[in-house]
Amino acid sequence: MKHTYAVIMAGGSGTRLWPVSRKKHPKHLLPLLGERTLFQNTIERVCGLTSPGRILVVTTGEQADELRAQAPQIPPENFLIEPQPRGTASVIGLAAAVLERRDPEAVMMIFPSDHYIRNRDVFQLIMRAALQVARQDYLVTLGITPTFPATGYGYIQRGEPLPGKFEYPVYRVRRFKEKPDEDLARELLTSGDHSWNSGIFIWKAARILAEFRRQMPALFAALERIGCAWGTPQQEAVLQAEWSNLESKTIDYGVMEHAENVAVLPASGLEWSDVGMWDSLFDVLLPDKNGNVVVNSDHLLLDTHKSLIYTTEKKLIVTIGVDNLMIVDAGDALLVCHRDQAQRVRQVIEGLKNSQREEYL
Amino acid sequence: MKHTYAVIMAGGSGTRLWPVSRKKHPKHLLPLLGERTLFQNTIERVCGLTSPGRILVVTTGEQADELRAQAPQIPPENFLIEPQPRGTASVIGLAAAVLERRDPEAVMMIFPSDHYIRNRDVFQLIMRAALQVARQDYLVTLGITPTFPATGYGYIQRGEPLPGKFEYPVYRVRRFKEKPDEDLARELLTSGDHSWNSGIFIWKAARILAEFRRQMPALFAALERIGCAWGTPQQEAVLQAEWSNLESKTIDYGVMEHAENVAVLPASGLEWSDVGMWDSLFDVLLPDKNGNVVVNSDHLLLDTHKSLIYTTEKKLIVTIGVDNLMIVDAGDALLVCHRDQAQRVRQVIEGLKNSQREEYL
Repeated sequence: MKHTYAVIMAGGSGTRLWPVSRKKHPKHLLPLLGERTLFQNTIERVCGLTSPGRILVVTTGEQADELRAQAPQIPPENFLIEPQPRGTASVIGLAAAVLERRDPEAVMMIFPSDHYIRNRDVFQLIMRAALQVARQDYLVTLGITPTFPATGYGYIQRGEPLPGKFEYPVYRVRRFKEKPDEDLARELLTSGDHSWNSGIFIWKAARILAEFRRQMPALFAALERIGCAWGTPQQEAVLQAEWSNLESKTIDYGVMEHAENVAVLPASGLEWSDVGMWDSLFDVLLPDKNGNVVVNSDHLLLDTHKSLIYTTEKKLIVTIGVDNLMIVDAGDALLVCHRDQAQRVRQVIEGLKNSQREEYL
Repeated sequence: MKHTYAVIMAGGSGTRLWPVSRKKHPKHLLPLLGERTLFQNTIERVCGLTSPGRILVVTTGEQADELRAQAPQIPPENFLIEPQPRGTASVIGLAAAVLERRDPEAVMMIFPSDHYIRNRDVFQLIMRAALQVARQDYLVTLGITPTFPATGYGYIQRGEPLPGKFEYPVYRVRRFKEKPDEDLARELLTSGDHSWNSGIFIWKAARILAEFRRQMPALFAALERIGCAWGTPQQEAVLQAEWSNLESKTIDYGVMEHAENVAVLPASGLEWSDVGMWDSLFDVLLPDKNGNVVVNSDHLLLDTHKSLIYTTEKKLIVTIGVDNLMIVDAGDALLVCHRDQAQRVRQVIEGLKNSQREEYL
């Protein structure tokens, strides 16, 4: 694992988990599913694949202090601060530029900081296979086996199996597909050769930089100038200057769609969730025999089924004659939402903005 | 109004409005429907019928201080403390004994402290008619015109109209009926000659004491001894000693059912509620065009109908895709209850007792 590095992207907000996730308390910084935060779980999950000294965290100025406090085992200089949000292409580019200067043979595993994965052993087995493939100069993506016709994820279609022997089946990528509409999603689900795009990538730093040079030359040039100033007194000034001029692009649209030698590793057997909406907690946490999931609350449920009861503080929640409801109490704000309507929490954020109730955002 | 007195019975708890009403914060002591408490509203309602010096409050030792603080205009000695709960017959007997010593011509109007009445003018018009009838030695009860087949109230059947001219129609009572089952309730509702028993009574102190002598001689004897000691240094000791031996009986079963010359004044036109359960707030407060009632909360309701949102503190409540739900937040406890299940709040109280969660009672 000498040249193996983890890059954790930790700058998002996760507004769809309102009222628990807030501007000042983004999703990955919260102990959403237990005692540790999703960010801490993400770090824990890569332990054994690499060492804390080889974990980079890319984040924003506002979140850096809290992240450092939550992960004291990671050296402070491994936290890279994005001056403004410029999309995942820029984030990954920055990490690649910094890593390549440090270790020209660096292989990087890139993870969102706010996902849930149940079984660490399965995850590490898959990642070891992915690293093996990445060392052969592939750009590797981790695919998630779809379980329903999701319209909120991108899809990856696999082609023929990669030649060679790997510890897990790996395929050449045939095509990336943007978030589909519902009809197409149903088609992709039944096709059998599509995975969800997990946002987890594995590749050599030099290899992705070469793709940037070819496909995003402006970003590449900026990264070169940032790389040259890195570790010098000009580091901050150059980063600031270059960053503000960058185009905001995701790695998927900016690079992956037209990259060469892209592989996908369909991670069947991996219980994964992006914990994107409240109803995903029914998958992540284990419902009781009535289909209810209760987090933190002292509770008394009468004639209650398929419901989520979530409180940030210990509080008594009593329900009577309630089905398919999500009840989320965050102290100053309470959400009561039908289970089918979880995606409308976005509308709430808009509504609060429009009615000048910023204190709740 | 020289001989006119009001007696307010203020010793109950109102557990069916849990989690807002608690052992230590009984229903009538709460500002349930606005800025003033139900107890304060009750006092305000009798202003003009009598003066504060002629209002007696019968309560328990635990509640007396709070009641005095809420009604500083009532002389402290007008608060009568029941040593233990012994039913409404004893409460009314005590008030009658005390009043008769003070004013042998006293006419008393007896009110529960935790009911809601919308229009004070209509109420006072009705009470003036009732006082007129009571001064002719009738025991007068206020009947409420039934609006649904309630199984939670007693019923009063009226007979022929009283002879004489009164400002409101008054009838001789034919029969008192205990809380009926649902079939009987439906029958009584359509009969046209039944009223709900409001628990509001109007009579001369001397007249009800005569009924006690005839029908509850043990209570009458005790009241005589208490009356003799009243205002002497032995007052407290005698009250304590007599009270513990009293049988617990309601005025309805103990006296009214077999009393002579009982009249009922069916208070049609009076918007009344005993605010007995959360769903009664839909009658008392005016629902908006979606049928929702919101109390205290800052709120954002998406696709929400026929629901009650009630918070004791200002708090943001967001609902999405919710119908016929009652959401009641009291800070340390939250109730989410289907509108049809309001009566099961009782079960919650039992459940909390049985699971040693006394802090929430």
